[in-house]
Amino acid sequence: MSLRNSAAVVGVGETDYSRDSGRSELQLALEATMKALDDAGIAPEEVDGIMRWSVDSSPEQMIAANLGVRDLSWFGEVSAAGPAAAAIVAHAAAAIHAGLANVIVLYRGVNGRSGRRYGRGDVTGQGGRGAGAFTEPYGIMAPQMSLAMSTQRQMYEHGYTSRQFGMVAVTQRMHANRNPKAMFFDQSLTIDDHQNSRYVVDPLHLYDCCLESDGGGAMVLTSVERARRRLGPVAAIRAAAQVGTGVGPNGERLRKRVFKQAGIAPSDIDVVQIYDHFSPFVVFGLESNGFVKPGEGGEFVESGGISWDGGELPVNTSGGHLSEVYLQGMNHLIEAVRQVRDESTAQVKDAQLSYVDTSVGAVLFERMN
Amino acid sequence: MSLRNSAAVVGVGETDYSRDSGRSELQLALEATMKALDDAGIAPEEVDGIMRWSVDSSPEQMIAANLGVRDLSWFGEVSAAGPAAAAIVAHAAAAIHAGLANVIVLYRGVNGRSGRRYGRGDVTGQGGRGAGAFTEPYGIMAPQMSLAMSTQRQMYEHGYTSRQFGMVAVTQRMHANRNPKAMFFDQSLTIDDHQNSRYVVDPLHLYDCCLESDGGGAMVLTSVERARRRLGPVAAIRAAAQVGTGVGPNGERLRKRVFKQAGIAPSDIDVVQIYDHFSPFVVFGLESNGFVKPGEGGEFVESGGISWDGGELPVNTSGGHLSEVYLQGMNHLIEAVRQVRDESTAQVKDAQLSYVDTSVGAVLFERMN
Repeated sequence: MSLRNSAAVVGVGETDYSRDSGRSELQLALEATMKALDDAGIAPEEVDGIMRWSVDSSPEQMIAANLGVRDLSWFGEVSAAGPAAAAIVAHAAAAIHAGLANVIVLYRGVNGRSGRRYGRGDVTGQGGRGAGAFTEPYGIMAPQMSLAMSTQRQMYEHGYTSRQFGMVAVTQRMHANRNPKAMFFDQSLTIDDHQNSRYVVDPLHLYDCCLESDGGGAMVLTSVERARRRLGPVAAIRAAAQVGTGVGPNGERLRKRVFKQAGIAPSDIDVVQIYDHFSPFVVFGLESNGFVKPGEGGEFVESGGISWDGGELPVNTSGGHLSEVYLQGMNHLIEAVRQVRDESTAQVKDAQLSYVDTSVGAVLFERMN
Repeated sequence: MSLRNSAAVVGVGETDYSRDSGRSELQLALEATMKALDDAGIAPEEVDGIMRWSVDSSPEQMIAANLGVRDLSWFGEVSAAGPAAAAIVAHAAAAIHAGLANVIVLYRGVNGRSGRRYGRGDVTGQGGRGAGAFTEPYGIMAPQMSLAMSTQRQMYEHGYTSRQFGMVAVTQRMHANRNPKAMFFDQSLTIDDHQNSRYVVDPLHLYDCCLESDGGGAMVLTSVERARRRLGPVAAIRAAAQVGTGVGPNGERLRKRVFKQAGIAPSDIDVVQIYDHFSPFVVFGLESNGFVKPGEGGEFVESGGISWDGGELPVNTSGGHLSEVYLQGMNHLIEAVRQVRDESTAQVKDAQLSYVDTSVGAVLFERMN
C-alpha cells in the first residue's frame, strides 16, 4: 500500500512573523487557517478534519467552532513537540486515503517569544516529573541543553566543526534575505558573526539556535481528485512516514521507509527542508536521509552544497527555523509546498520533488499540475 | 472508500480492576498491552504502531521502549478525554489501511481512583484556564456537573424519568454480576437501591455515575490478511468513524457516517456498548444511534430492552463504566471484541455485528472466522 495518488496540499497560509504578535495563539492559528483555506479556494465550513501538534494550545474543537464547520469527521494530534510536523501530514493523508475525511486542516499558532518560550524550558520542562526527573535536576531543562551533548558526541565521532555548523546558519540566512516574511529578512550573517557569537550551550553558538518567535501557519489537504480543481500546481503527497523508538538511528529507519514508499532515491529530490532547531541537525539530516554519505555532511555544507545560489541540493530555502520563524516545522511544510508551486522566494528551477524531514516524520511532495 | 477488509482486532488484554492498583499507570498500560499481544500471538518487538488517549499519562515512546519495538512507524493520540476510545480505533485502522503500520497497539492505563480522579475535576478541571474560565468559577469543575444540566434539559424535553436511568444501572449491574472481572461482580443493585441513593448532582444519583477505578486495557490491531492467521474468530473492523463540532447533534452525524460506511442498518446490530460515564447517556445513545426512535429510549430500557437476559438489544454486557470499570471506553472496546469472539460472560448468541459508541467515535466490529 502507499499514499500515492491519495492526498494533496491545496492551500497554505501564514500570519506575519514577529517577536510579539499582540494576539492569542488561537487567533494566530485561525488567521493562518483562513488564509490557507482562501488559498485553497475552499469554504471554511467544508473542513471536516483538523489536526494539530499536541503542543499547540488551541484545541481542534475550538478551531472547528470558529470556522463554523458543518461536520467534523476527523481530529487528532501527534505528541512529539515540534518534530511532529511531517508526521501529522502522514496522519492526515491516511485519513483521506481511507475516506474518513475530505478536507483536513493542519495548524500551528504559537507565541514562542512573547508567550511560553521553548528555549527557557517553559514548554519542554516537566517540573521534574516523568523522564525529566532524571535530567532536570542536573540543569537539562530545554532542548538546547540535551542536544548540545548529542552534538558534542557527533563532533567527536565524525570530526564536524563549529564552522561547518555555522555555514548552515549563514546559508539559511542568505535564503532568509530573499524572503520578506522572514524574521531576519533584512539582517545579514557572516561566518565570522557566527564564530564570534556567544555560546548558548557549548558547542551551540547563538546563531546555531532556532528563533523564538510568534506566528501562525496552516495547510489544507484534500483528495488528489479534488485537488485537481485548483488552478495552478498543487503539492501531491508522494510519500509520508513517521518514526519513533526502535533499533538503530531513527533517521535511517525513516529514510528507508519513506523512499521505499516513494519508489525513488534521495538523489531524485530537487529541494529539501530539514528540521533545524539547531544547525548541526541539518548536517546530520543530510546524512541520515542519504543525500550525502555518512560523515560528509559537514564538508558538503561548508562547500556551499545546501545553498540556493549554486548548491547541489538547496536546503531550508525560506530561512528555516534559524532565520525565517520557529513554527515547529510548519514553516518547512509550507516552504516545501511553495517550491513545487513555483512560489518560493528562493525558487529551485523546475522543482518536482520537494522533501521535508522533521525528524520524527518525513513527507515527499510531488508537483501535480 | 471504506475501512472494510482493512484491519481487525487480533488481541485484547486487561489487568485486574481495583480501587488501588498499587502500581503506576505505565505498569498498568504495559501489563494490559503484553496480555493483548499474548492473546494476539504477536511478539512485542513486532509492534510498529502505538496510539493512546491524549489523557493517558504514558507516552507512546515509553510504551515502545518497554516493549522493545524494532521500528515504531506510527504513533498519535486523540484528545477528547475518555470518549476518544472508538475514534482511536478509526485512526489506527486508517494507518493500517494506508500501509503505514502493520501491528498497532492501543492502550489505557489509569489510576482513576487511587491517583488523579475525574470525579473531582483533578483531570478535567483546567484551573480556570481556557473554556474553563467561563464555567469553573460557577462550580462546574467535573463532567457530572455539566452533564447533569444537559440531562435535566433532556428530561424536560422528552419526559425521561430517574427510574428509567436507574434501570440502565440495574441492568448493567446484572451484566457485571456475570463478569468476574467487574468491580461490582459480587454486589447486586435494585431499582430501589438506585432511587434511594444520594444525589451526586441532581438528577444524577450515585448509581447513575461511572466508577472511579484503577486498571489497564489494551488491544492489538493488524491487517485483515494477517488477522486470518489467528486461531479462532477475530473482530474485523467493518466501519469506524469519528465526530466533533458541527451543525446538529454529534450523535446523529456519527450514526449517519458509520452506518453509511458499513452499508447496514442499526437494526442489523447484535450487541452494543455505549459510553456510560452517566446512565442517561445510554438512553440518549440508543436514540442517537437509531436503535430506538427518538424519545423512546427511556421506555425501552425500563421494559428490559437492553438486558442480556431476554432484551431485544443487549447493551454494555460487561457491566460498562457503571459496574465493570471506568477505563474511558477501553473496556467497551474489549467487550465488543469478546462478543464477536464468543467470549463474553454475557454472550449474545451468534453475535456477528458488535457496535461501540463512545460519543466522539463509533466502531462496528464484524465476526471474522
